[in-house]
Amino acid sequence: MKIKGTSVLVFVALVLSTVIAESTQTCRANLEAACNGGSSDGWDGEFFPGISKIKYEGPTSKNPLSYKWYNADEEILGKKMKDWMRFSVAFWHTFRGTGADPFGAPTKSWPWEDGTNSLTIAKRRSKKASNPVVRAHFEFMNKLGVDRWCFHDRDIAPDGKTLKETNANLDAVVALAKELQVLYSEIAFEGTSIKPLWGTAQLFLHPRYMHGAATSSEVAVYAYAAAQVKKAMEVTQYLGGENYLFWGGREGYQSLLNTDMQRELDHMASFLQAAVDYKKKLGFKGNLLLEPKPQEPTKHQYDWDAATTFAFLQKYGLSGEFKLNIECNHATLSGHSCPHDLETARINGLLGNIDANTGDPQIGWDTDQFLTDIAEATLVMLSVVRNGGLAPGGFNFDAKLRRESTDVEDLFIAHISGMDTLARGLRNVAKLIEDGSLTELVRKRYQSFDTEIGALIEAGKVDFETLEKKTMEWGEPYVPSAKQELAEMIFQSAL
Amino acid sequence: MKIKGTSVLVFVALVLSTVIAESTQTCRANLEAACNGGSSDGWDGEFFPGISKIKYEGPTSKNPLSYKWYNADEEILGKKMKDWMRFSVAFWHTFRGTGADPFGAPTKSWPWEDGTNSLTIAKRRSKKASNPVVRAHFEFMNKLGVDRWCFHDRDIAPDGKTLKETNANLDAVVALAKELQVLYSEIAFEGTSIKPLWGTAQLFLHPRYMHGAATSSEVAVYAYAAAQVKKAMEVTQYLGGENYLFWGGREGYQSLLNTDMQRELDHMASFLQAAVDYKKKLGFKGNLLLEPKPQEPTKHQYDWDAATTFAFLQKYGLSGEFKLNIECNHATLSGHSCPHDLETARINGLLGNIDANTGDPQIGWDTDQFLTDIAEATLVMLSVVRNGGLAPGGFNFDAKLRRESTDVEDLFIAHISGMDTLARGLRNVAKLIEDGSLTELVRKRYQSFDTEIGALIEAGKVDFETLEKKTMEWGEPYVPSAKQELAEMIFQSAL
Amino acid sequence: MKIKGTSVLVFVALVLSTVIAESTQTCRANLEAACNGGSSDGWDGEFFPGISKIKYEGPTSKNPLSYKWYNADEEILGKKMKDWMRFSVAFWHTFRGTGADPFGAPTKSWPWEDGTNSLTIAKRRSKKASNPVVRAHFEFMNKLGVDRWCFHDRDIAPDGKTLKETNANLDAVVALAKELQVLYSEIAFEGTSIKPLWGTAQLFLHPRYMHGAATSSEVAVYAYAAAQVKKAMEVTQYLGGENYLFWGGREGYQSLLNTDMQRELDHMASFLQAAVDYKKKLGFKGNLLLEPKPQEPTKHQYDWDAATTFAFLQKYGLSGEFKLNIECNHATLSGHSCPHDLETARINGLLGNIDANTGDPQIGWDTDQFLTDIAEATLVMLSVVRNGGLAPGGFNFDAKLRRESTDVEDLFIAHISGMDTLARGLRNVAKLIEDGSLTELVRKRYQSFDTEIGALIEAGKVDFETLEKKTMEWGEPYVPSAKQELAEMIFQSAL
Amino acid sequence: MKIKGTSVLVFVALVLSTVIAESTQTCRANLEAACNGGSSDGWDGEFFPGISKIKYEGPTSKNPLSYKWYNADEEILGKKMKDWMRFSVAFWHTFRGTGADPFGAPTKSWPWEDGTNSLTIAKRRSKKASNPVVRAHFEFMNKLGVDRWCFHDRDIAPDGKTLKETNANLDAVVALAKELQVLYSEIAFEGTSIKPLWGTAQLFLHPRYMHGAATSSEVAVYAYAAAQVKKAMEVTQYLGGENYLFWGGREGYQSLLNTDMQRELDHMASFLQAAVDYKKKLGFKGNLLLEPKPQEPTKHQYDWDAATTFAFLQKYGLSGEFKLNIECNHATLSGHSCPHDLETARINGLLGNIDANTGDPQIGWDTDQFLTDIAEATLVMLSVVRNGGLAPGGFNFDAKLRRESTDVEDLFIAHISGMDTLARGLRNVAKLIEDGSLTELVRKRYQSFDTEIGALIEAGKVDFETLEKKTMEWGEPYVPSAKQELAEMIFQSAL
Repeated sequence: MKIKGTSVLVFVALVLSTVIAESTQTCRANLEAACNGGSSDGWDGEFFPGISKIKYEGPTSKNPLSYKWYNADEEILGKKMKDWMRFSVAFWHTFRGTGADPFGAPTKSWPWEDGTNSLTIAKRRSKKASNPVVRAHFEFMNKLGVDRWCFHDRDIAPDGKTLKETNANLDAVVALAKELQVLYSEIAFEGTSIKPLWGTAQLFLHPRYMHGAATSSEVAVYAYAAAQVKKAMEVTQYLGGENYLFWGGREGYQSLLNTDMQRELDHMASFLQAAVDYKKKLGFKGNLLLEPKPQEPTKHQYDWDAATTFAFLQKYGLSGEFKLNIECNHATLSGHSCPHDLETARINGLLGNIDANTGDPQIGWDTDQFLTDIAEATLVMLSVVRNGGLAPGGFNFDAKLRRESTDVEDLFIAHISGMDTLARGLRNVAKLIEDGSLTELVRKRYQSFDTEIGALIEAGKVDFETLEKKTMEWGEPYVPSAKQELAEMIFQSAL
Repeated sequence: MKIKGTSVLVFVALVLSTVIAESTQTCRANLEAACNGGSSDGWDGEFFPGISKIKYEGPTSKNPLSYKWYNADEEILGKKMKDWMRFSVAFWHTFRGTGADPFGAPTKSWPWEDGTNSLTIAKRRSKKASNPVVRAHFEFMNKLGVDRWCFHDRDIAPDGKTLKETNANLDAVVALAKELQVLYSEIAFEGTSIKPLWGTAQLFLHPRYMHGAATSSEVAVYAYAAAQVKKAMEVTQYLGGENYLFWGGREGYQSLLNTDMQRELDHMASFLQAAVDYKKKLGFKGNLLLEPKPQEPTKHQYDWDAATTFAFLQKYGLSGEFKLNIECNHATLSGHSCPHDLETARINGLLGNIDANTGDPQIGWDTDQFLTDIAEATLVMLSVVRNGGLAPGGFNFDAKLRRESTDVEDLFIAHISGMDTLARGLRNVAKLIEDGSLTELVRKRYQSFDTEIGALIEAGKVDFETLEKKTMEWGEPYVPSAKQELAEMIFQSAL
Repeated sequence: MKIKGTSVLVFVALVLSTVIAESTQTCRANLEAACNGGSSDGWDGEFFPGISKIKYEGPTSKNPLSYKWYNADEEILGKKMKDWMRFSVAFWHTFRGTGADPFGAPTKSWPWEDGTNSLTIAKRRSKKASNPVVRAHFEFMNKLGVDRWCFHDRDIAPDGKTLKETNANLDAVVALAKELQVLYSEIAFEGTSIKPLWGTAQLFLHPRYMHGAATSSEVAVYAYAAAQVKKAMEVTQYLGGENYLFWGGREGYQSLLNTDMQRELDHMASFLQAAVDYKKKLGFKGNLLLEPKPQEPTKHQYDWDAATTFAFLQKYGLSGEFKLNIECNHATLSGHSCPHDLETARINGLLGNIDANTGDPQIGWDTDQFLTDIAEATLVMLSVVRNGGLAPGGFNFDAKLRRESTDVEDLFIAHISGMDTLARGLRNVAKLIEDGSLTELVRKRYQSFDTEIGALIEAGKVDFETLEKKTMEWGEPYVPSAKQELAEMIFQSAL
Repeated sequence: MKIKGTSVLVFVALVLSTVIAESTQTCRANLEAACNGGSSDGWDGEFFPGISKIKYEGPTSKNPLSYKWYNADEEILGKKMKDWMRFSVAFWHTFRGTGADPFGAPTKSWPWEDGTNSLTIAKRRSKKASNPVVRAHFEFMNKLGVDRWCFHDRDIAPDGKTLKETNANLDAVVALAKELQVLYSEIAFEGTSIKPLWGTAQLFLHPRYMHGAATSSEVAVYAYAAAQVKKAMEVTQYLGGENYLFWGGREGYQSLLNTDMQRELDHMASFLQAAVDYKKKLGFKGNLLLEPKPQEPTKHQYDWDAATTFAFLQKYGLSGEFKLNIECNHATLSGHSCPHDLETARINGLLGNIDANTGDPQIGWDTDQFLTDIAEATLVMLSVVRNGGLAPGGFNFDAKLRRESTDVEDLFIAHISGMDTLARGLRNVAKLIEDGSLTELVRKRYQSFDTEIGALIEAGKVDFETLEKKTMEWGEPYVPSAKQELAEMIFQSAL
């Protein structure tokens, strides 16, 4: 992405540097006003007036707009909380979420929304100066104290009539985002660099992708998707993104009757191999992430769950090249608990990122709720701690307000609640580890393998004949209680 | 049921040859009587008097005790029906199934049952001559016209006080089974050799396996399981078994809180590797089969579904050594359709055997019903035909009578119904293939990949830059209808 | 698409008679052209050129655009097929369905669509003469040979700025629909009156209904809903509608934490009582129908299933006033089989109508697929036959094309397939009834109650003391087999 | 375990008075020893040596054998904790639970078990003096500090050869239980009367009930069930039971194909009406309870959930005569949250008792786990507090140890954990109520109905015309946010 100097931007290639200088000045002045809480008469005055930076006030606070458990710089288990959590705001849910559902029209009238939907997004949106959504987004991150964000290409910039125009739209918005990243980094995060936790290409909304992208039955769609991913990888890198993500929302089938599953999977592998190759060409250092989901929108999605995705990666020789982004609501839809899929990813060296949300145990679709369950948050954080953290991954809030939550304030409450819940989980993990009795219970359970014969078995060196001899010698084994109720009691005591 | 003049076997090794000779004579005489439909006054008179050999009478027959669709020697798609189907009777469901459920006591009083449960099975059962269950089983196979069977070691012979005694019990029964195989092969199947489709070790019923077998937390249980599998592999080979199966009913966990999943999976891999080694030592030529199931009895079973099992095999370098036994009810419990798991196994070269049954779509446990759904049967047979058949695998009826079906006749009706349904499925597949329009619909859908660029993509030789160039050149892709409703209409027309 | 010489209607009451006369002439001329299959150069030329009236060609036909099982005038079980089926086309799915899903933009570009969504539907749509959607709808019904349709008020006419304007929009479209009903009745159905099977008010799409309509927490929304239902009942009656339906898509809750369930249920009862009162005032003779659904869009919908709705009706004294519209996909989402909910409705005298569709047994949301399963269709028709038919209700195709089915032809194929499947079901029921053995099996099962004591029990006249005495006298009861496998075999034989 | 000097009881009626006197003396002496914690060398020495009475030690205690949250006599929200909770031990799970599952043999070897199963339970068990299970049960209650218990007739006494013998067996055990109730009441509960929370008849285990009891297709089974319930009601009353329960485990169907659902439901109603009549004859003052469960063991159980059961009661005029026993695991199996079914019961005046347990959200069968989830426990207690308590009902622990938990200690840990969790829930409810903000949030949500028009609507006095007029006058309604995320935040703060 190269830019040579002029004022009004239409094609980014021509004009970026001056604009940055120009806009930076205006922007900084306004921002400083905003950050100082002063009223601003400019175009980019506060979107969230009356809401100041969210502060840690501790568990006894009754103020909904405060953190009760998340204290960013507090050290827990040898790391600052913010370094364990690495929170990220999901641009699409928070700033493009309309409240629409399959039976309902949009309900939100956010101050930054212009009534357009993601596909026919207004021209204005692609112009830098007046892009209210992106500006609101950065103000939100600033007030929340979160310095990472995630995006799909099409959330932040609309489709054009051609791929070229679409890419230009994207460049314009990305340029603005880059500026705002720099500015807010300086002003609000004391130089800590704001950046995307990950970027991704939206390969499921547009009707061209109705049969899939990498797995479409049409070769021209496959090609189009490749071109779109190429561009999305470039802008992710340009913005300093730490990871690049693939969610194959339509990489699956609706019916086996009209599907050649084998051929589709082969295509998907070719596609991902090409992405790996391009990553290397680009010199992109972050992780490539795959995000499993069992179904929805398709009847069956090829990245069903962590294990299925692992099978695919191994089959096609892609194992070392990808990590997984585990989403709790996806895990439960696939019939697993979220902790199960996190552990499956972790023990196979694949835990790269977490989409922090939760589903409803009685609902069969993706509700993308903010997690507020303390026990689940504790188990999630247990996996993270065992993994030594998630970096360069983190927690992305792939979660949305309920359709009926229509106050701007609700956006803050939801994020605070989600962050606090995970922070509370981390504190609970610290208690569990300090107490030590749960770890000890598990260690003891397997101690019969901490023996000579156990070590040989684990090394794959004991044959059936030897084991038969041992059995004849040992007689009927003693099998102790698994102590599950005790484990549950110890666990609950830490909550 | 009385027995005259047979010596009691305890250690098969000592007395086998005499006994076989002796028993063979008696047995043949009686069998011939039975096979000829004559009344028998001997100990092994018919268990199913009044039911003669089930014959093919065609779709218009109203006789429940006839085949309406299964005509063993009729050729369909270039093979005899019996060679496509390779049906097998499951010893445990059919002859040891009591009708008990978690809330109910046994309901069946079969003529061959002695009121004992599988664990405390009466001494008498371990004696060859008087074993009524095994005799009833072979009479049933004969009348049904099925020449394969499946068994767990503990179904056919009871535990002893020590492993040695247990093995001796098994040897005695196996000797009887071998004889009966030979006899019935000669008399009833014109020399076609009756044999096990597969044998397996029961590693889930005994309390010693409550934490798993290969994944038990106790090393002595791991060893015991190895010894038991070793023996079960030996007897399977002795009986001419075509495959050896592993169903890891308790290889999983009840709670992550007290489980070291990584260590358990490592143990499972060591165990299966040792099984592969022993198979080679034995010179056993059949397939080793793994049978996926998502859960039940454990909350999570490691062989969750076909894809998960494939991930495991690849990770531990076991891919070439195992095939899968897909059970329809297990597939649906894991959130997939049965055809999905069959196809997943097939396209990964893993489809080795099918446990023919079905579940209830509104029930969350394994109901093991006989499949009577014609559409599903047709899809199952479609996978089989695409796989070129299942040999050396086949269809095992891992299905049981409903608890409330208590007539001996019901056993026949259920098997006939299950066999006829699959046979009807095969006939439908033949119609579909002859018609050709469904195949053509699918071929056409992917024809844009039957091009130069398509071939290069499938060969993994096209990079993102090339694809971006093509996209700029091609413009917005044309995306045709997927014609799912037409595919469904064509499919239904064949039913 | 141009119109000559028609004045624009805004208030139907004022100008209806002139307009009808005027428009009728134009319309009839064009229609006759269309009906005669001649090419038309006028505004109302065919929307489905190349597709002529769908004819019955019998089961061996390979023509997708023919009926293989549905032969409208053929008599089965004493009634014409069309009188058993009473099919209806759902305006919204078929003519306003865009192919959008929660992750995807619209995919269909139907010739009658103007690119607007249901909420901001173009002004043009509210004008009678140029309304292409309604015209396409009637052409479709004509070609399909279906003389009933169903609609929500907001499908056929857009919201205005005020309720008054909204109602006027509706009046205009309704006037057109009425004319087209009359015209097509004469031309295509030989005078059989085309009419709505039912009409309904859409009380879930607009954001004002986000907390429900009758169960909204806002009294003004309750009032608005009442006004909207009042109008919808009026236009349903005006069009000759046979029933009026309530589907309470948002009459439920998202979270118990912020919900007063008791108060909401009380409000719902008041609302429905007012609807009953208004029906009487109107002199509307058709049935009022409630349509159970367990959830989606809400987490819990108050009309969860047939039994729950029955409980509600009884509690609030509304039992005699409503019947149920059972939708198969709703039944399965609530954990029941569709036949179960049909039978529950039937035996409680509540089976009023069927929304003919099906879901995917592995999918947890409403997929609204066309039913193609023969066994299910047979069971559905069994309930209908036992109910003596559904009149004044019928079968509404609350089913939609898959998002990926984008050919106009697919609309026909889907409906033909759905109609044929149910027709095939009816033919199977006739076979079952003729055969008689399934009915006999059930009759025999309960024959011990066809006795003196049985009759007394059924009359509620036998106390525990008497039964204890009988038990002492009778001893251990004999309990015969339930013969489920035999019942399944007999059932399958009829398919 | 030996017994000195007690005569053997067979027919209670004959020898009861002497025996009570005799046995009382012996028993009291031994009990006093046991209660004083002293070692006892007698026959009924402690079953749980080393475990003393469980005491409240507060939340910081690390002692698994202490209460951390349950402090029986502490007052919360105006009542003692024990009066809110009214805990009860389930005899069958705790003392007859073997650890068997559909794939596994028993795993427990409790000191009081004699290796018999519930059906063929040893003769010895029916003799009073030597009944170790009942003795262990009362020692357990004493040590746990719980003064209520629940039982099925067949848990506590085995079937005999005839109903008469069966009843005699029951009488003998009941006599012992009565004595032990009196003794422990005096010694351990300072005169507080120990008694059954409820008794019930086991109408599902015996094969005679395979087609149901009240809904069996056999009239003689219906009669047998009536005789059994009659007796069970009598002994429940004799023991001072506070309620009598019906769980219709097999009152449902396996297949609609062979079922006459209407006739079965009519029979069930006759049966329950006869039970109501007999209750009155007996002068039994407690509640009759129905326990909904959706399925398992049957495919469909007629008491599917609270709403379905309410529909049934109303239809057959039984509404005032029964209350419901809501079991959390049953509620979730029926597709509802447990709080949903509790609230459904409560607002219909039907909440009579709670079976305190929980299921696994990813498991489709009844796992009957002890509840350890704090959030759920808080919601459960919220319903209880809103209900003004449960008396004469209470909490029965219909929960069982995991199969792999085989230490006697585990029984205590599980119950302590379950009791503490609910107690913690109650404490949280107190916090929520004191804080008041959640209640206020809900009150405010509906305040538009706290108006004149609202009151009229709630009184059923507003017609559609009036509401239409209001709507025209009011214009588009204002619809505020539902504040779900805020509600969740407030709720979590109380945990």
